[in-house]
Amino acid sequence: MVEQTINSIIAAAKELIGSRGVVEDANDIAPWLTDWRGRFHGKAAAILAPANTGEVAAIVALCAHHGVPLVPQGGNTSMVGGATPPADGSALILSLRRMNHIRALDPAANIAVAEAGVILSALHDAAVAQGRRFPLSLGAKGSATIGGLVSTNAGGTQVLRFGTMRSLVLGVEAVLPDGSIHDGLAALKKDNRGYDLDQLLIGAEGTLGIVTAATLRLVPAIIDRAVAWVGVDHPATALKLLRYMESRSDNRIESFEILPAESLHAVLTHIPGTRAPLNRSHRWHILIEYVGEGAAEALAGLLQTDLIEDATVSANEAQAEAFWRIRDSISEAERATGPAMQHDISVPVDSMPAFMIDAARAVEVAFPGVHASAFGHLGDGNVHFHVRAPAGVDGPRWRAEVGEAASHMVHDLVTKAGGSISAEHGIGQMKRDELIRLSPPARIATLRAIKNALDPLNIMNPGKLV
Amino acid sequence: MVEQTINSIIAAAKELIGSRGVVEDANDIAPWLTDWRGRFHGKAAAILAPANTGEVAAIVALCAHHGVPLVPQGGNTSMVGGATPPADGSALILSLRRMNHIRALDPAANIAVAEAGVILSALHDAAVAQGRRFPLSLGAKGSATIGGLVSTNAGGTQVLRFGTMRSLVLGVEAVLPDGSIHDGLAALKKDNRGYDLDQLLIGAEGTLGIVTAATLRLVPAIIDRAVAWVGVDHPATALKLLRYMESRSDNRIESFEILPAESLHAVLTHIPGTRAPLNRSHRWHILIEYVGEGAAEALAGLLQTDLIEDATVSANEAQAEAFWRIRDSISEAERATGPAMQHDISVPVDSMPAFMIDAARAVEVAFPGVHASAFGHLGDGNVHFHVRAPAGVDGPRWRAEVGEAASHMVHDLVTKAGGSISAEHGIGQMKRDELIRLSPPARIATLRAIKNALDPLNIMNPGKLV
Repeated sequence: MVEQTINSIIAAAKELIGSRGVVEDANDIAPWLTDWRGRFHGKAAAILAPANTGEVAAIVALCAHHGVPLVPQGGNTSMVGGATPPADGSALILSLRRMNHIRALDPAANIAVAEAGVILSALHDAAVAQGRRFPLSLGAKGSATIGGLVSTNAGGTQVLRFGTMRSLVLGVEAVLPDGSIHDGLAALKKDNRGYDLDQLLIGAEGTLGIVTAATLRLVPAIIDRAVAWVGVDHPATALKLLRYMESRSDNRIESFEILPAESLHAVLTHIPGTRAPLNRSHRWHILIEYVGEGAAEALAGLLQTDLIEDATVSANEAQAEAFWRIRDSISEAERATGPAMQHDISVPVDSMPAFMIDAARAVEVAFPGVHASAFGHLGDGNVHFHVRAPAGVDGPRWRAEVGEAASHMVHDLVTKAGGSISAEHGIGQMKRDELIRLSPPARIATLRAIKNALDPLNIMNPGKLV
Repeated sequence: MVEQTINSIIAAAKELIGSRGVVEDANDIAPWLTDWRGRFHGKAAAILAPANTGEVAAIVALCAHHGVPLVPQGGNTSMVGGATPPADGSALILSLRRMNHIRALDPAANIAVAEAGVILSALHDAAVAQGRRFPLSLGAKGSATIGGLVSTNAGGTQVLRFGTMRSLVLGVEAVLPDGSIHDGLAALKKDNRGYDLDQLLIGAEGTLGIVTAATLRLVPAIIDRAVAWVGVDHPATALKLLRYMESRSDNRIESFEILPAESLHAVLTHIPGTRAPLNRSHRWHILIEYVGEGAAEALAGLLQTDLIEDATVSANEAQAEAFWRIRDSISEAERATGPAMQHDISVPVDSMPAFMIDAARAVEVAFPGVHASAFGHLGDGNVHFHVRAPAGVDGPRWRAEVGEAASHMVHDLVTKAGGSISAEHGIGQMKRDELIRLSPPARIATLRAIKNALDPLNIMNPGKLV
C-alpha cells in the first residue's frame, strides 16, 4: 500500500520534473542512504531532484497530497544523521543538488543570492572573483551546500568575528509543507512584519520546510592575514589572552582555537608532514588568526604580554596554512588513536576554561580508564569534547557499555553549566533522545507545537529534531 | 460575567504579587489606555505589575486558567497601537515597569542582562559607566523599555553599523502563554538545539509570550566621532557616496541619513535655534556619523570626492549635536506644517533612491494637491515617507477621504518594490489590515498557525499583529 503510493508519486514526479530529475537506480541511490560517518542507514525508493523552486513546490504539494514524507539533502555531510532517510523506506529523498546557481552576486551591495544546492567552496570562489568573501568555512566546504548550511545554522572557524550562518543570512526562500513558496529573499535591512519565518527556518533542519535559496552577506576580501601559534599554561590564561587581545585589536581576530598538548602530539604522530610550531613543550596551545593591513606585525605586537609562555607568528602563507593544518587534522589524528565518543558542546565563553578542566576530570573519575579532553573554538565557547576509550578495547562494545553513559554524563554537565548539547552540528537523529531528556518539558512541547502547526502531516524530514 | 472573572483575577493577583503590584485607580490607569500619539483608545480594569519573572509566570498562568487576555506594556511608546488594550475592557494590562533591574553587566565579556522594564537610556548610562555602550538608540529612549524594544525588534539610528535589536540580543527570557518560563538568557554563541524560540519572540509584539529579560551585546565605547553635513543633487548620488565611503572606511560609518531640502526648510522654520549647516542650497542633504580615532580628519578625507556639492564636518561635539538636532526634529517640524500620513517603509537599499523619487511623484499625481517626500535611514533602505495634505484642509476629514487611500497606494508601491510596510515600528493594531491585504494568504496562514500553536487561548496581546 505504502509502496504503491510511493510508486505513484515517482510516476507523477517524472511528469512534473522530468525523468532526469528522478533517480531510481539502487546503485545511484546507495551513497545517499548513509551518513558520511556511516552511523545511520536508511532506505528510499527514489531521489527526486527538482531543478528550480517551482519544481520543489510541485513535488512538496504532491507528497503532501499523498502524505508521503520527504528528506531533504544537500551535500549529505550531517554529523548527526540529519539527512539520512528513515530505515523503513517510507520517505523519498529530495535532493537540492540541481539547484546550484548563484542567482546574483553584487559586490557593491555585498550580497549574494545562492540556491540551496550551491556548494560552499563554489560560493567562496565566486565571491573571491569579485573581490569579496563569504566568511563562513568548515571542513566539509567541498561538499556542504548552502541549503544545508542554512538549515543547520552552520558554524565553523570564523564564528568569532562573523557569527554563525544565522548572522550571514539576509533572506530565505523556502517551500513550506503545504507546497506554498515563502519568498524572503529581498535583502531588507529592516522588516518588522510579524514573526520572522526566515529565522524560524534557519536551523530547523528541514523539518518545517525546504530551503531553496538564500540571500547572503558578503564582506570585503582579506587584505592581509597572519596566524600565530601560542603556548600557554591553562585554558583560563588562554581566555585572558583573548580578552586582552580583543580589547586592543578592533575586531580583527577571526579565529581563536585551543588545543591541549595531547592533541598536538596525536597530530604530529599520525599526520605525515606536520611539525611542532614551537620548540618547547606547553600544556595548551592556541592558534590565532588575525586579519588586516600589516597583520603579522600587529599580531606580534599583541603577543607582547606575560600571559603567554611562547609564540610564533607565521612568516608567510605556507606557514599559516601549516598551522591551520595541525588544527584541522585533530579529529583525523584522534580517530587513529582509538575509539572515542565525540561531543559538540558549548557553554558561556567565560565558563569554558573551568568546564574543560573540571568536566574532563569528572568523566575520567566516573569512568576509570577513559581519557577526556577538549579542543576547539574557545572564542565561541564551543569545544569538541572527546572521551577516548582505554587502549585495546573493542570499539562497538565499549561504546555500548561505557561510551553512551559517558556521553550522557558529558551532556548532563553541559546542561548544568547552562550550555548546549549541540553547539553547531544540530540534533538530527543522533541527539533527539538527549534533547528530549535534557530540555524542560514545556520547551519540547513548544517545539512540537510549532512543528505540528507548520507541518501537520509530518512530511518534512520525519524523525529528526522533534 | 466577564467583569466577574476579571474581578476574581484582580483579587487573586493581589494574593500572588501583593497589592503594590495591582493598580486599580482609574486616574492611575488612564495614561496607559491610550497610545502616545493619541490614536488608539482602550479600556482595562487594572494594571498588573509583577516584580519578577516568577510573578509574571504566576499572573500568566492565572489568566490562562480564566482565559482572560493580557496586554504587555513597557514604556507605551508604540507607533502602531501595539500596547493599547482592546476597547471592550476584556483584557488586563501587564506592566513590566517594576522589573527594571540590570541583572548583570560584564564589560570584559561585553554582555548585559537587563530586565524587560529597564529604560533604554538607563542601560545606555550603565554601559557607559563601565566603558562600554549599547549601540541602539531612538527618540523615545527616555521611555522605551528593553522588553518593548526586543518585542518590536526596534531599529533606530545605528542600524547601519550594528543592526536592529535582533542582532544585539544574545538571549531572551520569557513567560510563554501557558505560564511556563523560557530561559534563553545564557549567552551561548553557538546553540543548535532546535527552533530558535528567542528569535521567534523577538519582534512578536507580545503575541507569543511576555519577554521578561534579555541578554544584550555591548560594544566598546566610542573613542572619537565626527558628524558631516553634505549637500548632493539626488538620492542616487547619496547612495553612490555611501558605497564609496563604505569601501574605504572599514565599517566606521554609524549613520547615513538623508533628507530633502524641504525637510531642512521645515526644521529651520519651526524649530527655534536651528540653522543651516551649509551656505548654499542643495536639493538633498546627508548626515553622516563616523567613529574612530581621528574621526574628523578621516571623515573629511572620505568626503574629497566629486560626488558631493558641498560638505562640512563638525568641528566639535556641540556642532555634531546641532547637526543631529536638525535630523531628529524633522517629524516635529513637519507636524507643524499640517496634517500628513506617515509611513515607515523599507525597500532593498539599492532600490531606495529611485523609489523615493518615483513613489513621491506617483502619489502626487494620483492625489492632486498632496505633497509626498521621504527622509531617513538611506543606509538601511528605510525611510519615513510622508504624504502631506494641501494647505488649509480639515485634518480628520482629509485623512478619511484622501489620506487613507494615499497610504494604501504607498503600501502598494512598497510591496511591488519587494519592500516592507513596516520597517521598524511593527504591525500592532494600526497596520494589521494592511498586512493581511498585502501578504500572500499562505504567509498569513503560517503566522496564524504559529500564533495558535503557542497561544491557543489567544490571551497574549489580542488584536495585534495577526
